[in-house]
Amino acid sequence: MPRICTEVQVMFFDTDCGGVVSNIAYLRFIETARTLLAEELGLALAEMAKTQRYPVVVRTEIDYRRAAKLGDRLVIEGWLDELERARFWCAFRIIRPKDNVLIVNCRQSVALIEMPAAKLLRLPGEWEKYRKPGADARSRSPDTHVQRTG
Amino acid sequence: MPRICTEVQVMFFDTDCGGVVSNIAYLRFIETARTLLAEELGLALAEMAKTQRYPVVVRTEIDYRRAAKLGDRLVIEGWLDELERARFWCAFRIIRPKDNVLIVNCRQSVALIEMPAAKLLRLPGEWEKYRKPGADARSRSPDTHVQRTG
Amino acid sequence: MPRICTEVQVMFFDTDCGGVVSNIAYLRFIETARTLLAEELGLALAEMAKTQRYPVVVRTEIDYRRAAKLGDRLVIEGWLDELERARFWCAFRIIRPKDNVLIVNCRQSVALIEMPAAKLLRLPGEWEKYRKPGADARSRSPDTHVQRTG
Amino acid sequence: MPRICTEVQVMFFDTDCGGVVSNIAYLRFIETARTLLAEELGLALAEMAKTQRYPVVVRTEIDYRRAAKLGDRLVIEGWLDELERARFWCAFRIIRPKDNVLIVNCRQSVALIEMPAAKLLRLPGEWEKYRKPGADARSRSPDTHVQRTG
Repeated sequence: MPRICTEVQVMFFDTDCGGVVSNIAYLRFIETARTLLAEELGLALAEMAKTQRYPVVVRTEIDYRRAAKLGDRLVIEGWLDELERARFWCAFRIIRPKDNVLIVNCRQSVALIEMPAAKLLRLPGEWEKYRKPGADARSRSPDTHVQRTG
Repeated sequence: MPRICTEVQVMFFDTDCGGVVSNIAYLRFIETARTLLAEELGLALAEMAKTQRYPVVVRTEIDYRRAAKLGDRLVIEGWLDELERARFWCAFRIIRPKDNVLIVNCRQSVALIEMPAAKLLRLPGEWEKYRKPGADARSRSPDTHVQRTG
Repeated sequence: MPRICTEVQVMFFDTDCGGVVSNIAYLRFIETARTLLAEELGLALAEMAKTQRYPVVVRTEIDYRRAAKLGDRLVIEGWLDELERARFWCAFRIIRPKDNVLIVNCRQSVALIEMPAAKLLRLPGEWEKYRKPGADARSRSPDTHVQRTG
Repeated sequence: MPRICTEVQVMFFDTDCGGVVSNIAYLRFIETARTLLAEELGLALAEMAKTQRYPVVVRTEIDYRRAAKLGDRLVIEGWLDELERARFWCAFRIIRPKDNVLIVNCRQSVALIEMPAAKLLRLPGEWEKYRKPGADARSRSPDTHVQRTG
């Protein structure tokens, strides 16, 4: 499955007066990672403005496990996790390599639309190779799939 | 249950070049709503810096239903949804009153911690009145509670 | 001269780990104030998306005098300060009423353009009443006009 | 004089519905560049949280010359421009290498303070080598020093 990895250093504007990285800053890191992942999948940023075809996030699930701090170097990993009929799930995790701590787990469900009508597009045919058998049958989130078997 | 309601008008900096409000801007609106809800629950912003006791978001689930645009006036409703042992769920929805459209649904799980040690605190005793009978027995997210009964 | 006034309470996401409001957050407050001022001048936000005519900032000068903190209630005043041939200056100041402290002074030079060609527009004829005699002869910034006379 | 150079690609969250990069996003790029410049000057980000000594911006002057767009790759150059008694000026410019266009010019006046008392610190002695003869005699901004002689 397509997979990317990127790095960021925590800046002042990423932190808040609690002394740690603010919720929203992690989602900015993930936006950047998802853009790189989209390029990996053939959706180049520079072309979107021309074609008016954009990936749009329809759902985000994010778990804040540990807090990162000013100056921390973080690694954001992103991968295509699952294809559904008309949308796909990307998954991300943010790690602090210095002490190998998991900072954030995240999943985002994404659809492709054409602006300005916001028309929902079918997923590209060449993505069929990424489809897992029976994937549409279930709809899971990363930290709950164990309990869902019952 | 404690409940708040606030308003915002969509500014340029809330939008992106897709012509609509960006994912992250909605979460900023929700941060403001959660702060007002916390004040309603007795956690005043101005005191947090002194006591070093902060509510921290441990999980966010957000569904982007429809897109808001520049100049739209939006209403953000927030309420205390459920108490667990050491954390509580806040729920939010963002409505556009002009055409009565639901823009965003969101749930956040929040814990109370004391900085700088990031010590997890017990929920205030006076919140017991908000506890629903049997709430701890299940741990649900808004779109999956049906499947979880099995 | 047209003049507006708005209020904001400092949220977590406005602060950084230095314990104070971050540089960029003040500029977000000023964006909101400038939008209200533009409405006062007949440039309504909701119409801009239709007409594709936008005010664009061409220069910002901002002095950070004192630091605001989490929970502070701030007042942002904005006014039309000066018309030039094809652009105009807005001025802003941010005050903390609690102790009557001046937090920020700011001036922004703004032009009107038509997108997508980014064509520079003439200022509206009805703004002539705001023109000060001889205003185009000098080009000053708020804190340096004393020294400039020499 | 100490000098740094860094790169960024314009993401969705950097743009607004005018189709271009928003004012505030450029200042975020410059915050990152200034942090790198501070490290070059011996002020490491990871140490600031420990020493509680921070560089604080006391004035920003920024000229928005041309608009950058989604997907553009931008180069941010930053350098130490001038030392004053208790503060120093950093200068920045943002270039789009693809067509060699100047996007933004910026200068920031910075002081060093010790928190939480916000005590103003003297500039490090080892920076004396960067001082230009007679620098304190004048106080200029980048685009106006010609007119100031009259």
